[in-house]
Amino acid sequence: VNIDEIPTPALVVDLDLCKSNIAQMAAALPGPSLRPHVKAHKCTALARLQRGAGHPGFTCATIKEAEGLFDAGLGDDLFIANEVVDARRIGDLVQKGAKVMLAVDSEATIEAAASGGVEEVIIDVDVGMPRCGCDEDDAARLADLARSLGLRVEGVMGYEGHAVHIRDLPKRNDEVQKSAYALLRAHDLVGGKIVSGGGTGSYNLNSVVTEVQAGSYVLMDGDYGTMALPFDQALLVHTTVISVHKKGWAVADAGTKAIYGTPHIVEGGDVMFSSDEHLAFVPEHPVRVGDRLHVIPGQLDPTIALHKGMWVARGTKVVERWQVDLSGW
Amino acid sequence: VNIDEIPTPALVVDLDLCKSNIAQMAAALPGPSLRPHVKAHKCTALARLQRGAGHPGFTCATIKEAEGLFDAGLGDDLFIANEVVDARRIGDLVQKGAKVMLAVDSEATIEAAASGGVEEVIIDVDVGMPRCGCDEDDAARLADLARSLGLRVEGVMGYEGHAVHIRDLPKRNDEVQKSAYALLRAHDLVGGKIVSGGGTGSYNLNSVVTEVQAGSYVLMDGDYGTMALPFDQALLVHTTVISVHKKGWAVADAGTKAIYGTPHIVEGGDVMFSSDEHLAFVPEHPVRVGDRLHVIPGQLDPTIALHKGMWVARGTKVVERWQVDLSGW
Repeated sequence: VNIDEIPTPALVVDLDLCKSNIAQMAAALPGPSLRPHVKAHKCTALARLQRGAGHPGFTCATIKEAEGLFDAGLGDDLFIANEVVDARRIGDLVQKGAKVMLAVDSEATIEAAASGGVEEVIIDVDVGMPRCGCDEDDAARLADLARSLGLRVEGVMGYEGHAVHIRDLPKRNDEVQKSAYALLRAHDLVGGKIVSGGGTGSYNLNSVVTEVQAGSYVLMDGDYGTMALPFDQALLVHTTVISVHKKGWAVADAGTKAIYGTPHIVEGGDVMFSSDEHLAFVPEHPVRVGDRLHVIPGQLDPTIALHKGMWVARGTKVVERWQVDLSGW
Repeated sequence: VNIDEIPTPALVVDLDLCKSNIAQMAAALPGPSLRPHVKAHKCTALARLQRGAGHPGFTCATIKEAEGLFDAGLGDDLFIANEVVDARRIGDLVQKGAKVMLAVDSEATIEAAASGGVEEVIIDVDVGMPRCGCDEDDAARLADLARSLGLRVEGVMGYEGHAVHIRDLPKRNDEVQKSAYALLRAHDLVGGKIVSGGGTGSYNLNSVVTEVQAGSYVLMDGDYGTMALPFDQALLVHTTVISVHKKGWAVADAGTKAIYGTPHIVEGGDVMFSSDEHLAFVPEHPVRVGDRLHVIPGQLDPTIALHKGMWVARGTKVVERWQVDLSGW
């Protein structure tokens, strides 16, 4: 099948670019020094390519992602880098033979881990982004509590999400270093072999972590695309022009249910607005009804979560279809 | 099952409020004077309730929605109120016995309809929103072209999407009337028995249409909730507090993959930001890890498109689970 024959709107992965991103990252962060975050793509086929590049473990944001990876035979080194209040489904996975570490940042989440059958936890530390993560001063106390409940404390994590999208590299680096040293201080108090953190925007800046949790590098998006990172845009939303108005605007069939964040039209054009199934824009060059356009989504992760699958292409030829099989909760 | 035992994040429909919204609208616009838009909920179970309230037809935004309604036995009066470039899947539906009218606004979409096996079209007219729809002056010519290709022209549609969200009622009414009269002028030139348009924000203002395409009224959202419409918020996103920081913020487990548009926390609280799986906020009243919170999503339609199903509750009791079975394309 030629890529221009698939129904639109559709996610299309350029397999060669995707593999080159994976190889590039595996060269920079080989083996266990990268723990790819599957929330970016929610796709076991892609996780398998990352495993094939030598990374033994995965980072998850949801229990569903961990369950899906286990079902796909990729559940031997998982880390759910997020807090949960009911850990029983994780306990079930551990019973079945999965290895799943869980982030905790409070008495309540530690107790949920212990009572739910989790065996290994990582203390999540606030390193400057106002989201999950305990205060640095509480890390040691929480680690002690976890150990007293029979949990193995494998280390610390801290995500510098406030820093990874800063475009100015020296500023980004400053913020990443501040976070990294906060995480190191917490690790000194907590112990364990793992210091986990970082993302695509800090993969080569955060040198204190033992493993980087990057995910977006594998396909990239508009936000990361402005940051001079050595990864190529390997995913596009293919869309079809369905209406051209004589007053100068046109409409393509990829709206807010197909693209999350600001759409960037590769062929050029100023976006007017997006509605559910429409992208209204003023084209840079004349377009006709039926033309195919290619859009870089502003944000990769929630864009993929809107789709059931991705077409995989080499050049103009469809070579595979990947299911987005890790979405939901 | 008690509603507080379902895993979060989750869509929860209050069945009584939902049925009351449906009854309220059916009283205002009985039978064929409402053609409920299923893009709002993408759920055949809900479409069945709307059919039960006396509305014989449905509006769709995608071919997938029409296919799903047909498979559910609800395909005897469908209108795809959107342009398509490849109509063959619609032709297949018609072959199987579905009645499907299709919007067209150009030579290309009319030719696609004819060659794809569509039998009935509606001329889509620009009534002031810069999206699909032909110029008023072109409506007659396009109707002639369609008839010359053997298509039945059933009438006109025009969606006043630029007007339906105006909060000031007199201003909204003015804009709706301007659009309505543009649509009437086009109808005079085109002919046919259908004049289709309107939405939840103009359901009682647009008196020229023979059928209103409202959809959001059935569940409502934050945007429409500010407009003093006589419909209740019948859908909430249930979420669980997973982290409480001593500096004053807290985090719930419903991020951009669960809620589209600005989240409004029913229990009170200022939203700081949403990330993939997190809603960071400053609670109005103290919260604890494990507390359940209830969120009104800013925009209903794309919020539902992020979920696979909805829990249906009466009071605190789960009575049903509805699949979001019309999503995708």
